Amino acid sequence: MSVLIVGTTALDSIKTPKAENPRLLGGSASHAAVAASFFSPVKLVGGVGEDFPRKYLDLYRRHKIDLTGLQILPGKTFHWSGEYELNMNNRRTLATELGVIETFSPTLPESHRKSQFVLLANIAPSLQHHVLDQMQRPKFVVADTMDLWLNIALPDLLKLLPRIDCFVLNDSEADQLTKEDNVFAALKKIHKLGPKYVIIKKGSHGSILSAPQGFFICPAYPLHTLCDPTGAGDSFVGGMMGYLATARGSIDSNIRRAMIYGSVTASFCCEGFGLNRTTKIKRADIEKRVKELEKLTKF
Amino acid sequence: MSVLIVGTTALDSIKTPKAENPRLLGGSASHAAVAASFFSPVKLVGGVGEDFPRKYLDLYRRHKIDLTGLQILPGKTFHWSGEYELNMNNRRTLATELGVIETFSPTLPESHRKSQFVLLANIAPSLQHHVLDQMQRPKFVVADTMDLWLNIALPDLLKLLPRIDCFVLNDSEADQLTKEDNVFAALKKIHKLGPKYVIIKKGSHGSILSAPQGFFICPAYPLHTLCDPTGAGDSFVGGMMGYLATARGSIDSNIRRAMIYGSVTASFCCEGFGLNRTTKIKRADIEKRVKELEKLTKF
Repeated sequence: MSVLIVGTTALDSIKTPKAENPRLLGGSASHAAVAASFFSPVKLVGGVGEDFPRKYLDLYRRHKIDLTGLQILPGKTFHWSGEYELNMNNRRTLATELGVIETFSPTLPESHRKSQFVLLANIAPSLQHHVLDQMQRPKFVVADTMDLWLNIALPDLLKLLPRIDCFVLNDSEADQLTKEDNVFAALKKIHKLGPKYVIIKKGSHGSILSAPQGFFICPAYPLHTLCDPTGAGDSFVGGMMGYLATARGSIDSNIRRAMIYGSVTASFCCEGFGLNRTTKIKRADIEKRVKELEKLTKF
Repeated sequence: MSVLIVGTTALDSIKTPKAENPRLLGGSASHAAVAASFFSPVKLVGGVGEDFPRKYLDLYRRHKIDLTGLQILPGKTFHWSGEYELNMNNRRTLATELGVIETFSPTLPESHRKSQFVLLANIAPSLQHHVLDQMQRPKFVVADTMDLWLNIALPDLLKLLPRIDCFVLNDSEADQLTKEDNVFAALKKIHKLGPKYVIIKKGSHGSILSAPQGFFICPAYPLHTLCDPTGAGDSFVGGMMGYLATARGSIDSNIRRAMIYGSVTASFCCEGFGLNRTTKIKRADIEKRVKELEKLTKF
């Protein structure tokens, strides 16, 4: 089955202590879509400006991403620029130019409305709602978010949570949302807000799933070199959804392995700027690291 | 087989945002010895003052810890007092009264010199050397340390590393020692200093082993409540050594599982002040959590 992915499609200018890269392909939907494309067909829903480089459309197409839902709008593409500190953990936003994303509304083509697997990647919760409003009984809906929406659109986000199956957020966002620093206490509170599955991401420390069948501690694939972590969380959830959409059996029987595949796909993302590394790998490279991760964690 | 454990035997006064506990049994050797005692007989080597409470000697004895090597010296027991911040990650030392530990020298009884498994728990590297000087061909020697010795006794520590099989340190100490923030780069540099096995502890994020057979990512048992992390690292290495000393087969075939047992033993340590919780559990409680950890990490 295919995965419908809505989120931001952006140009990212990323500065690290070692290099500076202007106008890379970025955005939550771009990272998630490329990651998911290793496992299943992807339908991308987003909006870009007239300045969006043709080479990035070609990149999507090389990954067989269905662009019927990608709107090319009058104006400029959403542009984010940020800078990482030496330890690569702290980043600060240098500039955010919303461009076409300010008025973008994700209208779904008819062919997209029956999608079974829906990933509401990080974007304004009101737009995540708008996508769900157009869907016909999807099987599994995952939503990601970011601290910005907790700050400026919390009521919208809280109304979204009962509408989705799985909520993915990082540890500091979980802390911000629940005021609980213990992960189990935080997970419990988030379940009460609606989602049956909750995943808290902990960056290089992996992630934890809370599901009807219990908890799962998902390791991160340990990196020998960290180049640029931008988009790693989107790659994680994209890889996970791509794997789930084509795996046989129930969500419960596949979600742990799906997280492992997401984790490994995210590891490649961190090894290059933007999507530079992820777009150079093949499914076999992912399988190799999954096997390695099995060995690394076996006891 | 038994484990010989040398380290500090102390009284700890521990303050957290929730409670204050004066003069608990503490010190690296106390935590490590109690942890190891669930798996194998333990020979404790340390020094306490005349003020050392009788109830703590009884506590050691209840855990069948051989106290032949525990010297009761004229003067006061080493006393550490510290305070944890609200997030329980940062702690600051309020007072350190060395007492008898200032002049203590670990002289081994004849019966201890042929021990096969030796844990040089955290104490001055010169004293760790002194213990090794008295040993006859031990099979497996593990040393732990702390940032203090990196600061004030680095030459002694560097001379110790080629004499041991396994070096255990935490991530910030590894960073301080190697100036490498990537864990693989740090592990590589530490191997060059001597030890065949290196374990970097990452607190609630588990630990990583680098061994001749490869790396192992060891998860931490996730805690629902964190009371006091003092001694968790000592409990980890103590539990690991206790398990190794009685496991059949080679070090290589047992060390991963030994780390899991150490990790679980440390989880109990964190659930009470000092040794309050660890001294109330049984081997069966550890086995139960090991099984849980297997379930939590299976994919």
